[in-house]
Amino acid sequence: MQDKEILALSARDIASAVRSRALTVRAVTEAHLKHIDETDGPVMAWQHLDADQALASADAMDRQGVTGLLAGVPIGVKDVIDTADMPTGYGTSIYDGFQPPWDAACVQNASNAGGLILGKTVSTELAMASPNKTRNPHNPAHTPGGSSSGSCAAVAAGMVPVAFGTQTSGSVIRPASFCGVTAFKPSFGLINTVGIKVLCHSLDTLGIITRNIGDAAHCAAALSGRSGLENPTPPARPRIGILTGTRLDKAEGSSLEAIERLAAIAEAAGAETTIIPAPAWYDGIFDLHEAVMGWEVTHSLAFEIARHWDGLTPVTRAMLEDQGRVDEIRYRSAMAEIPGIRHLMDAILSRFDAVLTLAAPGEAPKGMATGDPVFNRLWSVLQVPLVCLPVTNGPQGLPVGVQLVGARGSDHRLVCAAQFLETAIAAEGGIK
Amino acid sequence: MQDKEILALSARDIASAVRSRALTVRAVTEAHLKHIDETDGPVMAWQHLDADQALASADAMDRQGVTGLLAGVPIGVKDVIDTADMPTGYGTSIYDGFQPPWDAACVQNASNAGGLILGKTVSTELAMASPNKTRNPHNPAHTPGGSSSGSCAAVAAGMVPVAFGTQTSGSVIRPASFCGVTAFKPSFGLINTVGIKVLCHSLDTLGIITRNIGDAAHCAAALSGRSGLENPTPPARPRIGILTGTRLDKAEGSSLEAIERLAAIAEAAGAETTIIPAPAWYDGIFDLHEAVMGWEVTHSLAFEIARHWDGLTPVTRAMLEDQGRVDEIRYRSAMAEIPGIRHLMDAILSRFDAVLTLAAPGEAPKGMATGDPVFNRLWSVLQVPLVCLPVTNGPQGLPVGVQLVGARGSDHRLVCAAQFLETAIAAEGGIK
Repeated sequence: MQDKEILALSARDIASAVRSRALTVRAVTEAHLKHIDETDGPVMAWQHLDADQALASADAMDRQGVTGLLAGVPIGVKDVIDTADMPTGYGTSIYDGFQPPWDAACVQNASNAGGLILGKTVSTELAMASPNKTRNPHNPAHTPGGSSSGSCAAVAAGMVPVAFGTQTSGSVIRPASFCGVTAFKPSFGLINTVGIKVLCHSLDTLGIITRNIGDAAHCAAALSGRSGLENPTPPARPRIGILTGTRLDKAEGSSLEAIERLAAIAEAAGAETTIIPAPAWYDGIFDLHEAVMGWEVTHSLAFEIARHWDGLTPVTRAMLEDQGRVDEIRYRSAMAEIPGIRHLMDAILSRFDAVLTLAAPGEAPKGMATGDPVFNRLWSVLQVPLVCLPVTNGPQGLPVGVQLVGARGSDHRLVCAAQFLETAIAAEGGIK
Repeated sequence: MQDKEILALSARDIASAVRSRALTVRAVTEAHLKHIDETDGPVMAWQHLDADQALASADAMDRQGVTGLLAGVPIGVKDVIDTADMPTGYGTSIYDGFQPPWDAACVQNASNAGGLILGKTVSTELAMASPNKTRNPHNPAHTPGGSSSGSCAAVAAGMVPVAFGTQTSGSVIRPASFCGVTAFKPSFGLINTVGIKVLCHSLDTLGIITRNIGDAAHCAAALSGRSGLENPTPPARPRIGILTGTRLDKAEGSSLEAIERLAAIAEAAGAETTIIPAPAWYDGIFDLHEAVMGWEVTHSLAFEIARHWDGLTPVTRAMLEDQGRVDEIRYRSAMAEIPGIRHLMDAILSRFDAVLTLAAPGEAPKGMATGDPVFNRLWSVLQVPLVCLPVTNGPQGLPVGVQLVGARGSDHRLVCAAQFLETAIAAEGGIK
């Protein structure tokens, strides 16, 4: 098979071909390494990439034979996720070159499923807002978004079919929208997060970035052990809600247009669509996220704040100063309110297979700042499953996605609805 | 002040004397180091203890002046908790000598409050059941319990006034009972656990081991930022429940006698006591813990299982094999049931200031096996605050404690009731 054909394969196709010995892991790895070599110059998606190490792993897998859901699939791992065989710097000069003694659970589970960890992708500093070197592959004058900058850029540029990101506010869904890739952030707790640098133990979730929802769900099945996610089957007539919510003064036209386009495509394909007005308590959720994140980040990063303050970037320091203003009473009161709010939102969401919401304010902004997570934060604090699907191109020719939301635990239902929508978009000629 | 007087001070008294410059941190540190030197031989509570390093820290604190709730208080830190200035081996030969690049949040917050991290205390392997070298200070032929073996033994022997432990099943409350010390395991989430080796993200909690409840609550205030915990005030007429529950065939007479003695003391001191029958769904909680722990441990330790299986002890391997039998469906069904069960139990517990339960089956068993966590597991999965108070001596002359339980989030109410009970025990002549 030619390199170009290999690069066009989905993760599931690669795994299937490798399992049946139609394709070697070396051929898959070589094709991707070559493509990275040719395209990564202006993108700078990789924090650590050792071609010799990757090829040695590939050869070992070919020798031993490899099975599993991710057999031979090259994976980019965000550099806030520990790897025993590659340094992990957490996007900060403080920990540059640090070598963890272990793999994070998601990395080990990916390896157990036959995946090949190709390298580490660039993260913003400590997965917060201070941008790193990666540029948007559609236009290097624009941000890829963050904090999962390298993972989204690498998948968008076809350098890997699968990459791992992490989200506390909007660090997977927003950059996926900016880069025009698919992302699946499962319900909180579905995928074990041990070995991922913690910002907020109530919020942090692993997200899977791919070129299609089927690959993302397949990979989530491998990492979570929930085999039902392996092959999402689109329902014939899904119920789709549309909830654009509040704070729309922060949204550009392109984001709302993407939702309108997707809703029209869904209806034309047979879905039943319903506009959901923002409930009275909706706007309060923004404050809940702020309270939880402020308090938990300040405690989780107590060491970096106390011992490495001067080693942090000015953007990180300003963010930490802001977050340090949340006091214990505000945190406690938010934590008391949150379970009830989650139930209220689940009651709305569970009436639908997917609810369409904004993935980001609009196209990727020019410059390096990673963009505003305003439309992501409330969903993160609700711990619900999220999908980003690329839907349109904005006026600057950059991709704009739509965020799909499901009730907590309804991951399977959500990815099935996402499969319906992805197929419907393709039938309408794809991203326009 | 003489060494003997220093060693008799509570953590609060040390902090107060250091803040007022009535006592130097060096004097405090020297007294404790000397006592360790004299008593640790048969106990073996310490995994890492560098006297020169500790004295250098003490001198630096004396030079700079030290303030905070824990000013100058020597603290023992269980060796599954990361420390930037001391190696952290997680109780296993796999990671022997590993040097983390950071302090765990609890360690940094203790330092921020003026505490002096004296050294690392012995843990069982990966905080599971495989015993390590520490012996019970009351009788070295017996186990101190585990997994927080060194922390409980060190406090029991007067080597430090405060030590940190961690609990997933019964790893703080049970060894505290076996060693005759006080322990406070706050509600899940009250104290940030970043930098503590994760077994189960739904269960793991930091526990504080001390010689009295006031010190434990005071330290919890410093670590959690919840200032209300600083000075627990006993209520005049607390409501005390007594819930011995099921599986009493596992209990020795001494544990039930300890509860009876404490109930009688409480009544005599003015408490209102009520016997609580085990609700119909009580026995099912044991299975919920087993399901959660089995699934989460297997994922959290995926790396150690895949890459270091032969480096684990036979006891750990057998435990992991057993836990690996929990499948995803059983885990998911337990996770769906648990929130409701927590609410049901909170509804019972919130009628009382404290509910008396078994801390352990009885006295510390002879030999090295760390004892049965049967009476701890269900409370861990409920995420409720727990206290262990030493109450009696059993037939072998070893201490037996009682576990006090409160509703989730009622930490302040629970430590106030514990203060009432501790005072009442002392008025009745202390542990008998």
